[in-house]
This record gives sequence, C-alpha cells and structure tokens, in this order.
Amino acid sequence: MKHQALFRRSFAGKRVLITGGLGFIGSNLARELVRLGAKVTILDALIPEYGGSRHNLKGIAAKVRVHVADVRDRKRLPGFVRGQDFLFNLAGQTSHMDSMTDPETDLEINCRAQLSILEACRLHNPGIRVVFASTRQIYGRPDYLPVDEKHPLRPVDVNGINKLAGEEYHLLYSEVHGVRSTVLRLTNTIGPRMRVRDARQTFLGVWIKQVLSGEPFEVWGGEQSRDFTYVDDAVQAFLLAAAKRAAVGAVYNLGGTERITLLDLADLVVAAAGGGRFAIKAFPANRKKIDIGDYYADDRLIRQALGWCPQCGIEESVERTVEFFRAELPHYLSCA
Amino acid sequence: MKHQALFRRSFAGKRVLITGGLGFIGSNLARELVRLGAKVTILDALIPEYGGSRHNLKGIAAKVRVHVADVRDRKRLPGFVRGQDFLFNLAGQTSHMDSMTDPETDLEINCRAQLSILEACRLHNPGIRVVFASTRQIYGRPDYLPVDEKHPLRPVDVNGINKLAGEEYHLLYSEVHGVRSTVLRLTNTIGPRMRVRDARQTFLGVWIKQVLSGEPFEVWGGEQSRDFTYVDDAVQAFLLAAAKRAAVGAVYNLGGTERITLLDLADLVVAAAGGGRFAIKAFPANRKKIDIGDYYADDRLIRQALGWCPQCGIEESVERTVEFFRAELPHYLSCA
Repeated sequence: MKHQALFRRSFAGKRVLITGGLGFIGSNLARELVRLGAKVTILDALIPEYGGSRHNLKGIAAKVRVHVADVRDRKRLPGFVRGQDFLFNLAGQTSHMDSMTDPETDLEINCRAQLSILEACRLHNPGIRVVFASTRQIYGRPDYLPVDEKHPLRPVDVNGINKLAGEEYHLLYSEVHGVRSTVLRLTNTIGPRMRVRDARQTFLGVWIKQVLSGEPFEVWGGEQSRDFTYVDDAVQAFLLAAAKRAAVGAVYNLGGTERITLLDLADLVVAAAGGGRFAIKAFPANRKKIDIGDYYADDRLIRQALGWCPQCGIEESVERTVEFFRAELPHYLSCA
Repeated sequence: MKHQALFRRSFAGKRVLITGGLGFIGSNLARELVRLGAKVTILDALIPEYGGSRHNLKGIAAKVRVHVADVRDRKRLPGFVRGQDFLFNLAGQTSHMDSMTDPETDLEINCRAQLSILEACRLHNPGIRVVFASTRQIYGRPDYLPVDEKHPLRPVDVNGINKLAGEEYHLLYSEVHGVRSTVLRLTNTIGPRMRVRDARQTFLGVWIKQVLSGEPFEVWGGEQSRDFTYVDDAVQAFLLAAAKRAAVGAVYNLGGTERITLLDLADLVVAAAGGGRFAIKAFPANRKKIDIGDYYADDRLIRQALGWCPQCGIEESVERTVEFFRAELPHYLSCA
C-alpha cells in the first residue's frame, strides 16, 4: 500500500478521535488507524436510523475506546477533544429525504453540532488537526461534468445546505482561529460495513441487501451516471488529508476510478451476487425534486496535491462489498 | 415615486408580517406599507444589541400591530404566519464580530429560526409570499468587482456562513415546497432609524453618532471602496420583490448609485454635519481577519428584471441621515 511510511510516522502512538466512528467510513478508518498503531477514540450516538453499528468494530473492539454520545450534546465535547492529536469528523445525518421531512434535526447535527465541535477545539485544543467529511450534495445539479471544486454551490435539499455550512465553519476556523482543517467532499462510497438496511446512506446498500436476500431490487431511472469511491480508498484520502501539511485549509473532491450508469451498476451487483433480479422504475415525485441527475467528480486536485490515487475499480468494489455482506448480512439487518 | 400603482394594487388591504419590523430597514418598510394601506404586523424581539427600537414607529404606532417575540421561539411562529399575505423576513443578527465571539447565537437566529419560519409557512400558510433580507457578506473577499450574483460564495465569518444557509433555505422552500420566496443581498444600507449606538449594523452609524456628539470618529483603513443603498431605495426593492411574479425564486444584489472610498465618505459625513473631525486608524487585527476589502455590487439584474432604480445618491443619503439624527439622536442612544 502507498504512503505507509508517512502514515506510520503520522499516526503511530497518536491520539485520534473519530466522530461517527461506528459508522461505515468511520469504522473502516478506525480499523486502519488501529493497524497503524494509533490510540483511537470513537464518538458515536448509535442512532438507529444512522450508520453506526457495534458490529463494525468486530476484531478491534478491544483496541479502541468507544463513547456512546451525541455530538449535539455540546457540554461533553470539550472532554472528548481535549488531548487529541487528530479529529476525523464524520458524524452526520446523511439522508436527503429525512432532511426534507425533519429539517431541524438535520440542522442540529450537520450545522449546530459542527459549530460546537469547532468551538470545543478552538477553546480546548486549538492545535488539533481536523478532517471533515463533506459531500458532493452541496453542488446540487451539476452545470458541467466532471464537477471540480470551483463548481457553484447550489444544494437542492436541506442536507446539502447544512453540510455546506458545516464545511464552511471548518474552513473558517482553520483560516481565522488556526484550528487546522481539511474538507473532503465525498461522492457515493461503497464497501464493507455500509448501511444496507435502507437507502439512508446510499441506494446501493438496499440493492445489496435485496439481492442477497433473494429479492428483486428497484432501479430508479437508471441512465444517471455516478462515480463510486471504494471505502479503503476513501480511508486513504482521510489519512493523507490529516498527514499532509499542504491539505490545511483545503477542499478536495473524492471521485473514483471510473463512472458508471446505475443500470450498469445494477448488472454488476447481480453478477457479483451470482444471480438476482431488478426492476426499472420511474423516479418517485418527492425524490425527483431533490435529485441531482448525473454526477461525477473531477478529483485531480487531491491526486495532484496529496498523491491520492484510488486503487479499487467499480467492479472489484462491488464484488468485495457483496462478498462481505454475504457472510455478514444478518448482523446488519437489525439495530446496533 | 415610481411603481406606486403596482404597490397600491399589491399591498392595499393586504396582511403583511415583518420580522425585525422595529429595526432599521424593517421599520422604514413598515412605514411605507402603512402609507400604502397594508395591514402591518411586526414581530421583533427588541434585543438591546440589535436594531429594534419602538421609537422607529413614531407617527405610525397606532396603525401597526407589534408582537414583541423572538423568531427563535418556534412554537409561536405558526400563529404569526397564519393568514398573512406577505412575509418580509428581516429579523437577523447582523454583527460580524458578535458572530465570531458567539457563533451559536448567530446560528440560532440566522439559521435555525429561518428554517423554523419556513417550516411554519410550509405547514400553516404555504401560499404566503416571502422576501428575505440576505447580505453581500456571503461573497466574502471579492474575486472581481463589481460583484454579481454569480460570484463564488465564500463567506469569511460565521455570520456570512449562516446568512448563506438562511437564503438557501428560502430558495429551497420556494423551489421544492412552493413557498414563493425572493432573496435580496443587501450592501451597506443608510438612512433614518439606522442603529447608531455602535457598529453592530454598520460603522457609519457610529460615525454619525460621534460627529453629532462633537466627538472625532475613527476611519479604519480608508481606501476601501463601498457602495451604499439609501433606505427608501432598499424599501422599494423589498416591495418590488414581493409584488412581481418574476422575482419568485430569484436572488438579487442591491447596490447604490455610486461607489465611494471610506475616506471620501468620512468627508461627506463631516460636511453634512457642518463640521467635525476623524482619525485614520489601522485596521484592528481581529477585524482584519474577517474584513472583505473592496466591495461594490453589480445590481443590473434587479434593475432589469424588476425595474428597480435607486434614486438617492450617496451625498444626499448622508445629508438626509445626518439631518434625521440631528433631531432624533437622543432617542437612539439608549435602549429601546
């Protein structure tokens, strides 16, 4: 693996806090940091509708400290950030639909709690190094493809608006208060430990659940293009962003090795599962309103600036993910 | 005055809610709406550090209904928005410095309360027509001048980030939920009833207070260019935005008749006051960090789309404002 010497030097023996660390990307990041010798503390609220699951720590549970706590609980935040060398800030509400039906909860988590976390850093640990998980959702419907970081920011749902504020707070605290932060704008991420119970994290989770349960899944539309980051590649990006000085104050898109239409992706899922069926459906009206159409990222900036290079193509990503859930699915169908 | 027939047709007998209606722009808007025959209700929290003052209703107090209430009090909002034809949504925290020292209060008012107001409209009065007072602060430091609406949005303080979220919520609710809204991005606004006790609304208020009190005022820097909207012209823009169908879902910059450096503006203040002194000072370090440098707006869009045309030049704006406060200053030095 690339960058191993840098990562060992940067993280071995270091104290690392991961918010949302029982979630999909957070837990994969925690596993890698444990492997690198970091002292990992996880903060996760284990909200049933979100991505956290204790099962995600299988095999490393004894090596990390877990606080079941909510980032909205601002009084507890100073105690969590004090003494940490790094903060990987991944706690968030990710469902676009939930953000429209319950916008204030999305605001509390994706805006206010982010400001509270940064205030805690500013007041109690201004030397901490922060990486924030943002989203391509803040671009809204693309004016052009691939979408680079200069693309206008025009979110089409409450989640996108609040995540935009969340990343702006990080950049501001980095610039004005010296709380060094990097923002990663994630696209669809795929891999072991993703949420498959429903579509709150990504539609792909539901597809995999259905196909492995022997049920047909639904493809809405199908001609939309998307790109996908394999979770191990996303983890590499988080580590690079934290380890490299050049990343301070920067915003980077994450993309993938290739783009693909949803129909072609559905075929890959069926192939990886060794069989299965899907139905093509029209987009439901309430989702159409907040759909962004085609999207794929121009991620040259992080490749050039930090040497990030995603390794896992889409076919292999789907295969590995399906393989993981073939064994683990039962653990991911019920609550944490 | 232009547009009078349109305004009478649009507002006479109509029910109009103004949040922040005891403030500078809100109260001037209320006065004009009363003159046009509208049934005006004002919502204002009369927070001492903000712009509201009962004295701003002098002469029309009997003709408007005033609720001293806070937009953060979400339970009361449905009762206020129900039955209204128009909502001029001007309640806000305006101080850039306060937003940096107390970011969560800025967030509660400029983000969360805005979402609560829009939720109240969506659930209890989706047919209401809304105009939201945003700010040029969301652009941050200009890449080019004059700044048009396509300029990248890169706020340099917490206030700018939260106001950006506030306007995005309005555009989203207009687009997705049919709560028809227009966003006006205001530049410095000047005129009778502005806050002069301190610089929380604009530095110009303090200048006027000082010069009329026979004390020297401070000009920080001095070479920065700015534009100014006279409050009567700003009021015209709010009325046009509410009255014209073309404005639904739109964002417009407000500018002024001309740009001016702060030093030239200081000379105008001294001339209008019939004498006075000022000292040129270096920018204080904590303000420099969030200063945006030169700014003036490209406001051709609202001129072309709505026929807005500011009438009052900067010299006359300063003269009228100084004239107002020459008589009224004592009422504006203490709390509401």
